[in-house]
Amino acid sequence: MTSKMWGGRFSAGPSAIMNEINVSLGFDRRLGKQDVRGSMAHAEMLAEQGIISKEDSAAIKQGLIRIELELANGNFPFKQALEDIHMNVEQHLTALVGPAGGRLHTARSRNDQVATDFRMWVRAAIDTLDDEIKKLQDVLIGKAEANADTVMPGFTHLQVGQPVTFGHHLLAYVEMFGRDRGRFADARRRLNECPLGAGAMAGTSFPIDRQSTASNLDFDRPMANSMDAVSDRDFALEFLAAASILAVHMSRFAEELVVWFSPQFGFVTLTDAFTTGSSMMPQKRNPDAAELVRAKSGRVIGALMGLLTVMKALPLTYSKDMQEDKEAVFGVFDTLELCLAATMGMADDMQPNKERMAASARLGYSTATDFADWVTQKLNVPFRESHHITGQAVKLAESKGVELRELTLADLQGIDERITADIFNVLTVEAAAASRTSYGGTAPSNVRAQAQAARERYLGSKLKW
Amino acid sequence: MTSKMWGGRFSAGPSAIMNEINVSLGFDRRLGKQDVRGSMAHAEMLAEQGIISKEDSAAIKQGLIRIELELANGNFPFKQALEDIHMNVEQHLTALVGPAGGRLHTARSRNDQVATDFRMWVRAAIDTLDDEIKKLQDVLIGKAEANADTVMPGFTHLQVGQPVTFGHHLLAYVEMFGRDRGRFADARRRLNECPLGAGAMAGTSFPIDRQSTASNLDFDRPMANSMDAVSDRDFALEFLAAASILAVHMSRFAEELVVWFSPQFGFVTLTDAFTTGSSMMPQKRNPDAAELVRAKSGRVIGALMGLLTVMKALPLTYSKDMQEDKEAVFGVFDTLELCLAATMGMADDMQPNKERMAASARLGYSTATDFADWVTQKLNVPFRESHHITGQAVKLAESKGVELRELTLADLQGIDERITADIFNVLTVEAAAASRTSYGGTAPSNVRAQAQAARERYLGSKLKW
Amino acid sequence: MTSKMWGGRFSAGPSAIMNEINVSLGFDRRLGKQDVRGSMAHAEMLAEQGIISKEDSAAIKQGLIRIELELANGNFPFKQALEDIHMNVEQHLTALVGPAGGRLHTARSRNDQVATDFRMWVRAAIDTLDDEIKKLQDVLIGKAEANADTVMPGFTHLQVGQPVTFGHHLLAYVEMFGRDRGRFADARRRLNECPLGAGAMAGTSFPIDRQSTASNLDFDRPMANSMDAVSDRDFALEFLAAASILAVHMSRFAEELVVWFSPQFGFVTLTDAFTTGSSMMPQKRNPDAAELVRAKSGRVIGALMGLLTVMKALPLTYSKDMQEDKEAVFGVFDTLELCLAATMGMADDMQPNKERMAASARLGYSTATDFADWVTQKLNVPFRESHHITGQAVKLAESKGVELRELTLADLQGIDERITADIFNVLTVEAAAASRTSYGGTAPSNVRAQAQAARERYLGSKLKW
Amino acid sequence: MTSKMWGGRFSAGPSAIMNEINVSLGFDRRLGKQDVRGSMAHAEMLAEQGIISKEDSAAIKQGLIRIELELANGNFPFKQALEDIHMNVEQHLTALVGPAGGRLHTARSRNDQVATDFRMWVRAAIDTLDDEIKKLQDVLIGKAEANADTVMPGFTHLQVGQPVTFGHHLLAYVEMFGRDRGRFADARRRLNECPLGAGAMAGTSFPIDRQSTASNLDFDRPMANSMDAVSDRDFALEFLAAASILAVHMSRFAEELVVWFSPQFGFVTLTDAFTTGSSMMPQKRNPDAAELVRAKSGRVIGALMGLLTVMKALPLTYSKDMQEDKEAVFGVFDTLELCLAATMGMADDMQPNKERMAASARLGYSTATDFADWVTQKLNVPFRESHHITGQAVKLAESKGVELRELTLADLQGIDERITADIFNVLTVEAAAASRTSYGGTAPSNVRAQAQAARERYLGSKLKW
Repeated sequence: MTSKMWGGRFSAGPSAIMNEINVSLGFDRRLGKQDVRGSMAHAEMLAEQGIISKEDSAAIKQGLIRIELELANGNFPFKQALEDIHMNVEQHLTALVGPAGGRLHTARSRNDQVATDFRMWVRAAIDTLDDEIKKLQDVLIGKAEANADTVMPGFTHLQVGQPVTFGHHLLAYVEMFGRDRGRFADARRRLNECPLGAGAMAGTSFPIDRQSTASNLDFDRPMANSMDAVSDRDFALEFLAAASILAVHMSRFAEELVVWFSPQFGFVTLTDAFTTGSSMMPQKRNPDAAELVRAKSGRVIGALMGLLTVMKALPLTYSKDMQEDKEAVFGVFDTLELCLAATMGMADDMQPNKERMAASARLGYSTATDFADWVTQKLNVPFRESHHITGQAVKLAESKGVELRELTLADLQGIDERITADIFNVLTVEAAAASRTSYGGTAPSNVRAQAQAARERYLGSKLKW
Repeated sequence: MTSKMWGGRFSAGPSAIMNEINVSLGFDRRLGKQDVRGSMAHAEMLAEQGIISKEDSAAIKQGLIRIELELANGNFPFKQALEDIHMNVEQHLTALVGPAGGRLHTARSRNDQVATDFRMWVRAAIDTLDDEIKKLQDVLIGKAEANADTVMPGFTHLQVGQPVTFGHHLLAYVEMFGRDRGRFADARRRLNECPLGAGAMAGTSFPIDRQSTASNLDFDRPMANSMDAVSDRDFALEFLAAASILAVHMSRFAEELVVWFSPQFGFVTLTDAFTTGSSMMPQKRNPDAAELVRAKSGRVIGALMGLLTVMKALPLTYSKDMQEDKEAVFGVFDTLELCLAATMGMADDMQPNKERMAASARLGYSTATDFADWVTQKLNVPFRESHHITGQAVKLAESKGVELRELTLADLQGIDERITADIFNVLTVEAAAASRTSYGGTAPSNVRAQAQAARERYLGSKLKW
Repeated sequence: MTSKMWGGRFSAGPSAIMNEINVSLGFDRRLGKQDVRGSMAHAEMLAEQGIISKEDSAAIKQGLIRIELELANGNFPFKQALEDIHMNVEQHLTALVGPAGGRLHTARSRNDQVATDFRMWVRAAIDTLDDEIKKLQDVLIGKAEANADTVMPGFTHLQVGQPVTFGHHLLAYVEMFGRDRGRFADARRRLNECPLGAGAMAGTSFPIDRQSTASNLDFDRPMANSMDAVSDRDFALEFLAAASILAVHMSRFAEELVVWFSPQFGFVTLTDAFTTGSSMMPQKRNPDAAELVRAKSGRVIGALMGLLTVMKALPLTYSKDMQEDKEAVFGVFDTLELCLAATMGMADDMQPNKERMAASARLGYSTATDFADWVTQKLNVPFRESHHITGQAVKLAESKGVELRELTLADLQGIDERITADIFNVLTVEAAAASRTSYGGTAPSNVRAQAQAARERYLGSKLKW
Repeated sequence: MTSKMWGGRFSAGPSAIMNEINVSLGFDRRLGKQDVRGSMAHAEMLAEQGIISKEDSAAIKQGLIRIELELANGNFPFKQALEDIHMNVEQHLTALVGPAGGRLHTARSRNDQVATDFRMWVRAAIDTLDDEIKKLQDVLIGKAEANADTVMPGFTHLQVGQPVTFGHHLLAYVEMFGRDRGRFADARRRLNECPLGAGAMAGTSFPIDRQSTASNLDFDRPMANSMDAVSDRDFALEFLAAASILAVHMSRFAEELVVWFSPQFGFVTLTDAFTTGSSMMPQKRNPDAAELVRAKSGRVIGALMGLLTVMKALPLTYSKDMQEDKEAVFGVFDTLELCLAATMGMADDMQPNKERMAASARLGYSTATDFADWVTQKLNVPFRESHHITGQAVKLAESKGVELRELTLADLQGIDERITADIFNVLTVEAAAASRTSYGGTAPSNVRAQAQAARERYLGSKLKW
């Protein structure tokens, strides 16, 4: 085939294509720190086991310390031609310390090395995210306490159902984010086994000590099967799955912000910090940050779908396909960090319009349940019957164009003569909210107690979950 | 609009459409048992708290016991017009026990009821799957022990890399399935909080005891926030995510079976129990079951994608959208049960062709790593240098059309004069496999020990994970 | 392995598993009509080509006619043991007509047969959907014409941007659904090549006439490559992709209905035909049908994801994996039919609350663009400058708590002295909407013209697209 | 909240977050050329319609020409603070040409502008991909012609079914890629309507001529509904859907390369151009490029899933969520270009091992269908009966450990006495392949004819599809 076959980006032919498709240095350089740490532990173990000399090990360690600094300072001499971070580190090490560098790769393979590095990276990513979700919970709990008494409509089907408090609504998200932290914590625990020493796939005949490297690198134990060690990307999939659920949670909060910020709802204000103007409509304030948080769930879910597709039906052990894992995970981590920061920022920034919320809570006969519960409790009527009585009262109010509490006692007694004026005590939205004191219910006293409980459960030094 | 608008399936107009789209009885009848149990616990608590009378509670209990029997025996009188399992149970209860039945729904809503029922269902599904995965591990461990010495090629990139044992390969799957069980166990623990008592969303003013119902229904505790209790479907998403990873694992095993069963590989035989013939090619045996297990991962992943899409950007609290959760979860559970049974069946059924495997393991200079390791260890040469020496030996063998072990000592000394005849001891695939005694490595002795360890870890009464 | 390995659903062991995983009769019976038609065409061609006798062909035809009737009447004797619809038809045919039935499968395979049947099924499904989407467009166009003057807020970012008309908004969906029809039509054209005669994969040595069967079955031509003919499932993927975009369109309309139906918006009413009540809150009307249409997009997208996963990396030619195509496509077709009917029903049922809409359109300084355009046009000021002037006017109005049209001329001249009273003519929402007469714009006169154009483009006997 | 809330990447607080999440310049700068072209057409039309002066239009044009050059030459002064490419171009234009620049945005909005730019970009991307897929088809057709006689096994279920020719197998992919081009062409035709002039969403009161700008920018017509114009992202979804199916096709070819390149198959060789070595196993050649092409289908499918998730349930009209469309489409385009180049490279590079292929084709009684067809044709036996006779012959051959053609005539006549020695003429793989001369069949003569037909259909100046 003549060279005219190649055009555009790849006019240089196969070498340009292979460089573009195969070279991972562009993204796997993010594993630099982990690669150095893994190599340090490996070299130390090799020396302990007498596989390399103490001198070589010391030289390697000195070289790696310098490399770690160079990476941190941004002056590591990356070479594209060496394809990946691992060869870059090893070759630069050899340049720095001489032949000892060539002994570092004894009894290991790129397959176990990359799996080890990447697990350490995901582990650190989880720790970072845990910290950021915790901060978000802190903001939400604070806002919830400040709004323990702020009455708003509780929705089902986006219809006004019952009065709730804004604080209670926000604590629902604290619970969701708590489960997210739990999922990440479980993923962390499950990934925390060390592949190092699995070699290319079969283990090695060198007398290595995998327990030593595992423990040196803060893993709980070495992985039990060398083929699994280099074939497995469950940890990436599980990270992406937990990330997807977290992203869905943020998208739900973002959706609510967008709806609440619409002039028809008008429940919250957001400052210019998280909204923008319009190029054509000078009066508009658009909740861009909320919309983007909502949308970016797509990107996270897409990454999960992508990696599931990659791993589907892949025979053991390592296949190059698995190189697709890194950009997916890196991209999702960056997206989550950004969305968490934006969500936290908006949660902090938003101010409830308490009057609008309260007025809205009075729409749609939102105290009908309270009416029915009063009938059930005070008149000792089966629930299904009181549900029916309430339906008649609502119908009457609708026909008169008034709210339930605006009906007269005569109106009510016309429906059921046993009803007394006492019923009006439960028909304000404030009374309705305050009455729901069952565990986990929306009463302001409950919200305060739950905020305090959430603080203890989620904000201490250890997640109680 | 005239009635001609409606045609085909929906010629009866809106009522036919609404019946089809809204009625959930067709699938949620699978929640029957859970619904009865949840109602029993609720009624008992209502009586304990004095919200209903002991007599009513006793009547309700009697009715529910009978309903449970009817459901089990298949003679429960389902009524499509009542839309869902919950109304079916309640109305039939009222028919059986009279007005007491109408008191059952006091202080609860369909929102918390369905969430409670569904959590119990998923919990039971996880217990069933855990048991089935455990059986699959049992089969694999047995097969691994029986093949601790069976040498086969270990692949990376579907290229022969190093000799491994078939038993070692199978134990890799035991590890994967162990992680799957761990994920389901974590999901179970996380979902095991009780929504009952959350009401429609806000809690209730009735003096209910949520701790009592939670404990009665074997939940660890009541959910802390009533809005979260009815809005949350994390447990379904997490179930589907764990299911997707499990399905990917089974697809990998199935892919290997398909490849191993091809005449070009010829590594395993499968009996007619799991293969079928061809309509046009009478000689063919097709590994249909393996192909279908491989393919059904698509359905599981699709269900996860579907429910993530449903939940994305859904405002609190309950929306009807969430009704889509059940068919997704039910379908995935059925698919997993089926695929696990088929996988277990094939794992049991397959017989390794030991000669083909061993012959195949000798292809592709599979002991080159052993050559390099010998050079590194015995000649004290840096790994990178021995890697280079080995490359020369492979090139020489290729040019002569022989395997490494068929080169002469003179050949080898022509490459590096320090090489001795001792090197030939590591160049058989059996020796190579046996030499990899590092923890988790493929040596037959290791495989036996790991099989025993896996037995203890995974097959005891409690998953040690 | 002892029989205790098998439990639950599969206690009968491998045969029960294989039956459950492999037998497709449960779903592929939906291909019955297509299978009969395909066989008729095949038999006719075999006789024309002298491969079977005229007598055999006639006998086969008589038998197939009877089978078609039995299938239509529901009295075809399906046998589970025969696994799929194809063997059921063939065996029953042989029972009916004797040895001639055994000649039908000459020069064909189940591989080309199933591909032919399924393509015909998808083709018919597309024709049905096209008709249903067309009806939906009809309803929307009618509603649009009736509401050509109904002013409502046009939203970007769920913020009020500019006044539009309800009719204009509805015509946007007519365009979307028009593209959906275009996508299905293209998919239909592309799938309309006939696989029959490809045999198992390689063609045949019988002197068949593929042009004849193709044309007999209304295909445009036979497929050009026999291996592609049996390996390809593009047509199913393309169907699912078009379906996913259609489902997304319906989800957008459904979302708007849910939002418009909330009491805070109150833009539309829906009757009981498409809403339901609440078990605990007697006053609620919930837009269940809209929510379910919105949610069911997840199921459609999930099916697409599932089949993409199945087909990914599948080697040629037919693999059993591809059997997963049918349930995906059947399920999506049923879902789309249902969602289209519900969407059409709701579009017909919904009634705009014109006053609420108009009042809402006045919120948020929605005529600010008109203000800016007036400044640009009448004062010959660069747009960016008039945008700035308008911003000052909005700010002034906000500080006074009034709408733009409620500012005084003095107020406006204080901002820019060139402004005249003429500007007030463009500051009502009615005037603003009426002024946008650019092609495709929202002016009522435009909406009427566009509705007429849409009628011609979409509702004629042939889609002009 | 104190500043300590913010850490890590966002220590600067909300402004850093908003900058990161909202600013699109990092990716939308790829729209630079389209933005300039769109603005030129807009300015020209504004002058034609007397909305701006000829002088302003001329100045704008001069400025835009210069900007186009700067963009091409890489010296355009991008300013991050201006957020997106559109404001960058407009502001730099104003800096270059003065107040006239401020008139450019008259009668348009960023909403219609970005939709127009992006449609032009996708259109150009489709043209590029069409050209690249065509080149790939060219390579495959050439390879097919060169291998019209190369016999290999045809597989179903990865079992040897019938002998086919390598050329025939490759032409199957030519058909698949032809359909891909058809899908992109349809998407191009459907997207080729111009949104410009839709304004923010409602059209405009300026007397613009949308037909003029549409035609100037090579669109077929202006979009008919202004709200649809700014809300629609079907074109991005349809692009991603077509891309996903193309990616699946490439993944299937890549899978076959990986399998064919395994030593157990040994069907093809690939040079070092598209394979790499191993860090631990010096003898290995790994088909990395094929594996990566296979894997990258995940990324493409993930992007489709991501954008479907974004668009699901998004109310009209423009929401910021839609900004997520660009990175998805850009990334997929880059991925497809890369994978197409790699696929083309590998198709060109691969060399069939004809002897291995032919020997493999003889495995597994691959001429059994030919046996059955001979019996059917020559003995006038119903197919189902000849299928049975063939099964007996295969069983006999298996028991003797020979191939069908190695049975004696006596053997065969022992099964059915009517069989004559003539049958042996169809039992070589070469004869079997050559006999399948039905249209689309695998006979070498057919393959040559089909290659020629494919050349005419696909490689001319216009896709005949």
